[in-house]
Amino acid sequence: MERVSLPVIGVIHSPFDKLDGMPIQSAGARDVEGTVEVHPEYAEGLRDLEGFSHVYLIYWFHRAQRTELSVVPFLDTEKRGVFATRSPLRPAHIGLSIVELLRVEGPTLTVRGVDILDGTPLLDIKPYVPEFDHRSNATSGWLKAAKGNPLEARADGRFV
Amino acid sequence: MERVSLPVIGVIHSPFDKLDGMPIQSAGARDVEGTVEVHPEYAEGLRDLEGFSHVYLIYWFHRAQRTELSVVPFLDTEKRGVFATRSPLRPAHIGLSIVELLRVEGPTLTVRGVDILDGTPLLDIKPYVPEFDHRSNATSGWLKAAKGNPLEARADGRFV
Repeated sequence: MERVSLPVIGVIHSPFDKLDGMPIQSAGARDVEGTVEVHPEYAEGLRDLEGFSHVYLIYWFHRAQRTELSVVPFLDTEKRGVFATRSPLRPAHIGLSIVELLRVEGPTLTVRGVDILDGTPLLDIKPYVPEFDHRSNATSGWLKAAKGNPLEARADGRFV
Repeated sequence: MERVSLPVIGVIHSPFDKLDGMPIQSAGARDVEGTVEVHPEYAEGLRDLEGFSHVYLIYWFHRAQRTELSVVPFLDTEKRGVFATRSPLRPAHIGLSIVELLRVEGPTLTVRGVDILDGTPLLDIKPYVPEFDHRSNATSGWLKAAKGNPLEARADGRFV
Protein backbone atom coordinates (compact mmCIF):
# COMPACT_ATOMS: atom_id res chain seq x y z
CA MET A 1 0.00 0.00 0.00
CA GLU A 2 1.24 3.45 -0.92
CA ARG A 3 2.33 5.63 1.99
CA VAL A 4 3.89 9.06 2.40
CA SER A 5 6.49 10.08 4.97
CA LEU A 6 6.00 13.54 6.47
CA PRO A 7 8.22 15.50 8.85
CA VAL A 8 6.94 16.39 12.31
CA ILE A 9 7.41 20.17 12.54
CA GLY A 10 6.74 20.65 16.24
CA VAL A 11 4.67 19.65 19.26
CA ILE A 12 1.38 20.88 20.75
CA HIS A 13 1.06 21.42 24.50
CA SER A 14 -2.30 21.49 26.23
CA PRO A 15 -3.82 20.83 29.68
CA PHE A 16 -5.14 17.45 28.44
CA ASP A 17 -3.06 14.37 29.15
CA LYS A 18 -5.87 11.95 28.37
CA LEU A 19 -8.78 11.83 25.94
CA ASP A 20 -11.30 11.17 28.68
CA GLY A 21 -13.04 14.48 29.51
CA MET A 22 -11.41 16.57 26.75
CA PRO A 23 -13.65 18.89 24.71
CA ILE A 24 -14.37 17.21 21.38
CA GLN A 25 -14.02 20.33 19.22
CA SER A 26 -12.03 23.52 19.48
CA ALA A 27 -15.37 25.38 19.34
CA GLY A 28 -16.15 23.62 22.64
CA ALA A 29 -12.78 24.54 24.17
CA ARG A 30 -12.93 28.30 23.66
CA ASP A 31 -11.25 29.13 26.98
CA VAL A 32 -8.58 26.44 26.88
CA GLU A 33 -5.09 27.79 26.19
CA GLY A 34 -2.16 25.82 24.88
CA THR A 35 1.14 26.33 23.13
CA VAL A 36 2.57 25.16 19.86
CA GLU A 37 6.35 24.67 19.83
CA VAL A 38 7.68 24.66 16.29
CA HIS A 39 11.10 23.05 15.88
CA PRO A 40 13.66 25.89 15.62
CA GLU A 41 14.69 24.99 12.07
CA TYR A 42 11.15 25.84 10.89
CA ALA A 43 10.62 29.03 12.93
CA GLU A 44 11.36 31.28 9.92
CA GLY A 45 8.11 30.00 8.37
CA LEU A 46 6.07 31.64 11.17
CA ARG A 47 6.79 35.17 9.97
CA ASP A 48 3.62 37.20 9.20
CA LEU A 49 1.42 34.65 10.96
CA GLU A 50 0.66 36.99 13.84
CA GLY A 51 -1.72 39.09 11.71
CA PHE A 52 -4.16 36.20 11.55
CA SER A 53 -6.64 35.80 14.39
CA HIS A 54 -7.12 32.06 13.79
CA VAL A 55 -5.01 29.24 12.39
CA TYR A 56 -5.51 25.64 11.37
CA LEU A 57 -3.38 23.14 13.22
CA ILE A 58 -2.89 19.85 11.36
CA TYR A 59 -1.48 17.12 13.56
CA TRP A 60 -1.05 13.40 14.07
CA PHE A 61 -3.37 11.55 16.46
CA HIS A 62 -0.43 9.80 18.10
CA ARG A 63 -2.52 7.99 20.69
CA ALA A 64 -4.85 6.42 18.11
CA GLN A 65 -3.42 2.93 17.80
CA ARG A 66 -5.87 1.43 15.33
CA THR A 67 -8.19 2.21 12.42
CA GLU A 68 -11.95 1.68 12.46
CA LEU A 69 -13.94 2.48 9.33
CA SER A 70 -17.21 2.63 11.29
CA VAL A 71 -17.35 4.37 14.67
CA VAL A 72 -19.96 5.53 17.16
CA PRO A 73 -19.16 9.27 17.45
CA PHE A 74 -19.22 11.06 20.80
CA LEU A 75 -22.35 12.90 19.67
CA ASP A 76 -24.32 9.89 18.51
CA THR A 77 -25.40 6.39 19.44
CA GLU A 78 -25.21 4.87 15.94
CA LYS A 79 -22.23 3.72 13.93
CA ARG A 80 -21.17 6.18 11.23
CA GLY A 81 -18.58 5.97 8.50
CA VAL A 82 -15.35 7.35 9.98
CA PHE A 83 -14.96 9.95 7.18
CA ALA A 84 -18.36 11.38 8.21
CA THR A 85 -16.93 11.98 11.71
CA ARG A 86 -13.91 13.66 13.32
CA SER A 87 -12.88 10.48 15.15
CA PRO A 88 -9.11 9.88 15.51
CA LEU A 89 -9.52 6.28 14.30
CA ARG A 90 -9.36 7.35 10.61
CA PRO A 91 -6.78 5.54 8.44
CA ALA A 92 -4.21 8.36 8.28
CA HIS A 93 -4.85 9.54 11.89
CA ILE A 94 -4.73 13.21 10.83
CA GLY A 95 -6.33 15.79 13.13
CA LEU A 96 -7.50 19.30 12.22
CA SER A 97 -8.36 22.09 14.66
CA ILE A 98 -9.08 25.78 14.16
CA VAL A 99 -7.60 27.67 17.10
CA GLU A 100 -7.40 31.33 18.05
CA LEU A 101 -3.87 32.70 17.74
CA LEU A 102 -3.03 34.86 20.76
CA ARG A 103 0.66 35.54 20.10
CA VAL A 104 3.82 34.39 18.39
CA GLU A 105 7.13 34.54 20.28
CA GLY A 106 10.03 33.05 18.36
CA PRO A 107 9.15 29.42 17.62
CA THR A 108 6.22 29.39 20.10
CA LEU A 109 2.56 30.10 19.38
CA THR A 110 0.13 30.68 22.23
CA VAL A 111 -3.31 29.58 21.13
CA ARG A 112 -6.83 29.29 22.56
CA GLY A 113 -9.54 26.75 21.79
CA VAL A 114 -7.36 23.69 22.17
CA ASP A 115 -9.13 20.31 21.86
CA ILE A 116 -5.83 18.46 21.45
CA LEU A 117 -3.89 16.10 23.69
CA ASP A 118 -0.64 17.32 25.29
CA GLY A 119 2.40 16.14 23.34
CA THR A 120 0.63 15.81 20.00
CA PRO A 121 3.03 15.90 17.02
CA LEU A 122 2.39 18.89 14.74
CA LEU A 123 2.45 18.44 10.95
CA ASP A 124 1.38 21.84 9.61
CA ILE A 125 0.03 25.32 10.40
CA LYS A 126 -2.10 27.27 7.92
CA PRO A 127 -3.78 30.65 8.25
CA TYR A 128 -7.56 30.57 8.62
CA VAL A 129 -8.90 32.96 5.98
CA PRO A 130 -12.62 33.78 6.19
CA GLU A 131 -12.68 34.74 2.49
CA PHE A 132 -11.54 31.21 1.61
CA ASP A 133 -12.96 29.12 4.42
CA HIS A 134 -16.49 30.26 5.24
CA ARG A 135 -19.27 28.17 3.73
CA SER A 136 -22.34 29.88 5.12
CA ASN A 137 -24.70 27.59 3.21
CA ALA A 138 -23.23 24.35 4.58
CA THR A 139 -25.38 21.58 6.05
CA SER A 140 -24.18 18.91 8.43
CA GLY A 141 -25.87 15.53 7.84
CA TRP A 142 -26.30 13.17 10.78
CA LEU A 143 -24.95 15.80 13.17
CA LYS A 144 -28.06 17.91 12.62
CA ALA A 145 -30.19 15.19 14.22
CA ALA A 146 -27.67 14.21 16.90
CA LYS A 147 -28.74 14.69 20.48
CA GLY A 148 -25.90 16.29 22.42
CA ASN A 149 -24.66 19.87 22.26
CA PRO A 150 -21.31 19.57 20.48
CA LEU A 151 -19.94 22.58 22.33
CA GLU A 152 -20.57 20.97 25.71
CA ALA A 153 -19.76 17.38 24.80
CA ARG A 154 -16.63 15.77 26.22
CA ALA A 155 -14.63 12.84 24.97
CA ASP A 156 -14.28 9.47 26.64
CA GLY A 157 -11.86 6.60 26.16
CA ARG A 158 -13.58 4.93 23.21
CA PHE A 159 -11.03 5.91 20.59
CA VAL A 160 -7.87 5.09 22.52
CA MET B 1 14.39 14.17 12.43
CA GLU B 2 11.12 12.64 13.53
CA ARG B 3 8.75 11.66 10.72
CA VAL B 4 5.38 9.93 10.47
CA SER B 5 4.33 7.49 7.76
CA LEU B 6 0.71 7.88 6.62
CA PRO B 7 -1.33 5.73 4.22
CA VAL B 8 -2.59 7.25 0.99
CA ILE B 9 -6.35 6.54 1.04
CA GLY B 10 -7.19 7.46 -2.55
CA VAL B 11 -6.61 9.85 -5.43
CA ILE B 12 -8.16 13.17 -6.51
CA HIS B 13 -9.06 13.79 -10.16
CA SER B 14 -9.49 17.28 -11.56
CA PRO B 15 -9.24 19.13 -14.88
CA PHE B 16 -5.86 20.57 -13.83
CA ASP B 17 -2.74 18.76 -14.98
CA LYS B 18 -0.44 21.66 -14.16
CA LEU B 19 -0.29 24.34 -11.49
CA ASP B 20 -0.05 27.14 -14.04
CA GLY B 21 -3.53 28.69 -14.42
CA MET B 22 -5.22 26.70 -11.65
CA PRO B 23 -7.48 28.59 -9.22
CA ILE B 24 -5.56 29.13 -6.00
CA GLN B 25 -8.42 28.39 -3.61
CA SER B 26 -11.52 26.21 -3.79
CA ALA B 27 -13.56 29.38 -3.17
CA GLY B 28 -12.17 30.57 -6.53
CA ALA B 29 -12.99 27.28 -8.29
CA ARG B 30 -16.69 27.14 -7.46
CA ASP B 31 -17.72 25.68 -10.83
CA VAL B 32 -14.86 23.21 -11.21
CA GLU B 33 -15.93 19.60 -10.72
CA GLY B 34 -13.67 16.71 -9.88
CA THR B 35 -13.83 13.24 -8.38
CA VAL B 36 -12.26 11.62 -5.37
CA GLU B 37 -11.56 7.90 -5.73
CA VAL B 38 -11.13 6.28 -2.34
CA HIS B 39 -9.29 2.96 -2.38
CA PRO B 40 -11.93 0.20 -2.11
CA GLU B 41 -10.65 -1.07 1.24
CA TYR B 42 -11.60 2.30 2.81
CA ALA B 43 -15.00 2.77 1.10
CA GLU B 44 -16.92 1.63 4.20
CA GLY B 45 -15.69 4.80 5.93
CA LEU B 46 -17.71 6.97 3.50
CA ARG B 47 -21.07 5.89 4.90
CA ASP B 48 -23.22 8.84 6.13
CA LEU B 49 -20.97 11.37 4.37
CA GLU B 50 -23.61 12.20 1.78
CA GLY B 51 -25.65 14.22 4.30
CA PHE B 52 -22.90 16.85 4.43
CA SER B 53 -22.91 19.58 1.82
CA HIS B 54 -19.17 20.27 2.12
CA VAL B 55 -16.11 18.24 3.09
CA TYR B 56 -12.47 18.91 3.83
CA LEU B 57 -10.01 17.12 1.60
CA ILE B 58 -6.55 16.69 3.12
CA TYR B 59 -3.96 15.68 0.59
CA TRP B 60 -0.28 15.55 -0.29
CA PHE B 61 1.22 18.18 -2.61
CA HIS B 62 2.97 15.51 -4.65
CA ARG B 63 4.42 17.95 -7.19
CA ALA B 64 6.05 20.13 -4.55
CA GLN B 65 9.64 18.94 -4.67
CA ARG B 66 11.19 21.25 -2.13
CA THR B 67 10.55 23.26 1.03
CA GLU B 68 10.85 27.04 1.29
CA LEU B 69 10.24 28.70 4.64
CA SER B 70 9.70 32.11 3.02
CA VAL B 71 7.63 32.41 -0.17
CA VAL B 72 6.09 35.13 -2.31
CA PRO B 73 2.38 34.11 -2.34
CA PHE B 74 0.29 34.33 -5.52
CA LEU B 75 -1.61 37.22 -3.93
CA ASP B 76 1.37 39.27 -2.90
CA THR B 77 4.69 40.66 -4.01
CA GLU B 78 6.53 40.27 -0.69
CA LYS B 79 8.05 37.24 0.93
CA ARG B 80 5.93 35.78 3.72
CA GLY B 81 6.54 32.98 6.19
CA VAL B 82 5.23 29.81 4.54
CA PHE B 83 2.94 29.02 7.51
CA ALA B 84 1.22 32.38 6.93
CA THR B 85 0.38 31.22 3.37
CA ARG B 86 -1.25 28.25 1.67
CA SER B 87 1.82 27.60 -0.52
CA PRO B 88 2.61 23.91 -1.28
CA LEU B 89 6.26 24.48 -0.35
CA ARG B 90 5.55 23.94 3.38
CA PRO B 91 7.70 21.31 5.14
CA ALA B 92 5.08 18.53 5.30
CA HIS B 93 3.53 19.39 1.89
CA ILE B 94 -0.01 18.94 3.25
CA GLY B 95 -2.88 20.54 1.32
CA LEU B 96 -6.36 21.39 2.63
CA SER B 97 -9.41 22.26 0.53
CA ILE B 98 -13.07 22.68 1.41
CA VAL B 99 -15.13 21.32 -1.50
CA GLU B 100 -18.85 20.96 -2.14
CA LEU B 101 -19.97 17.33 -2.04
CA LEU B 102 -22.34 16.60 -4.93
CA ARG B 103 -22.73 12.83 -4.56
CA VAL B 104 -21.23 9.63 -3.25
CA GLU B 105 -21.34 6.49 -5.39
CA GLY B 106 -19.51 3.54 -3.89
CA PRO B 107 -15.89 4.61 -3.39
CA THR B 108 -16.29 7.73 -5.58
CA LEU B 109 -17.14 11.26 -4.47
CA THR B 110 -18.13 13.86 -7.02
CA VAL B 111 -17.13 17.29 -5.71
CA ARG B 112 -17.20 20.92 -6.83
CA GLY B 113 -14.77 23.72 -6.05
CA VAL B 114 -11.62 21.80 -6.88
CA ASP B 115 -8.34 23.75 -6.70
CA ILE B 116 -6.26 20.58 -6.74
CA LEU B 117 -3.99 18.98 -9.36
CA ASP B 118 -5.15 15.83 -11.13
CA GLY B 119 -3.62 12.71 -9.59
CA THR B 120 -3.09 14.22 -6.12
CA PRO B 121 -2.77 11.57 -3.38
CA LEU B 122 -5.58 11.81 -0.80
CA LEU B 123 -4.77 11.47 2.91
CA ASP B 124 -8.10 12.18 4.63
CA ILE B 125 -11.71 13.34 4.26
CA LYS B 126 -13.56 15.11 7.08
CA PRO B 127 -17.05 16.57 7.20
CA TYR B 128 -17.25 20.37 7.18
CA VAL B 129 -19.47 21.31 10.12
CA PRO B 130 -20.54 24.96 10.32
CA GLU B 131 -21.17 24.64 14.08
CA PHE B 132 -17.49 23.69 14.54
CA ASP B 133 -15.77 25.47 11.70
CA HIS B 134 -17.18 28.98 11.30
CA ARG B 135 -15.13 31.75 12.87
CA SER B 136 -17.14 34.80 11.93
CA ASN B 137 -14.83 37.15 13.84
CA ALA B 138 -11.66 36.01 12.07
CA THR B 139 -9.16 38.46 10.57
CA SER B 140 -6.65 37.65 7.88
CA GLY B 141 -3.36 39.49 8.32
CA TRP B 142 -1.31 40.36 5.24
CA LEU B 143 -4.07 39.04 2.98
CA LYS B 144 -6.30 41.94 4.01
CA ALA B 145 -3.90 44.37 2.38
CA ALA B 146 -3.02 42.16 -0.60
CA LYS B 147 -3.85 43.51 -4.01
CA GLY B 148 -5.46 40.75 -6.06
CA ASN B 149 -8.94 39.26 -5.70
CA PRO B 150 -8.25 35.78 -4.26
CA LEU B 151 -11.34 34.37 -5.96
CA GLU B 152 -10.09 35.40 -9.38
CA ALA B 153 -6.39 34.76 -8.87
CA ARG B 154 -4.73 31.89 -10.70
CA ALA B 155 -1.58 29.97 -9.91
CA ASP B 156 1.62 30.01 -11.90
CA GLY B 157 4.65 27.75 -11.86
CA ARG B 158 6.52 29.34 -8.96
CA PHE B 159 5.91 26.52 -6.47
CA VAL B 160 6.74 23.57 -8.73
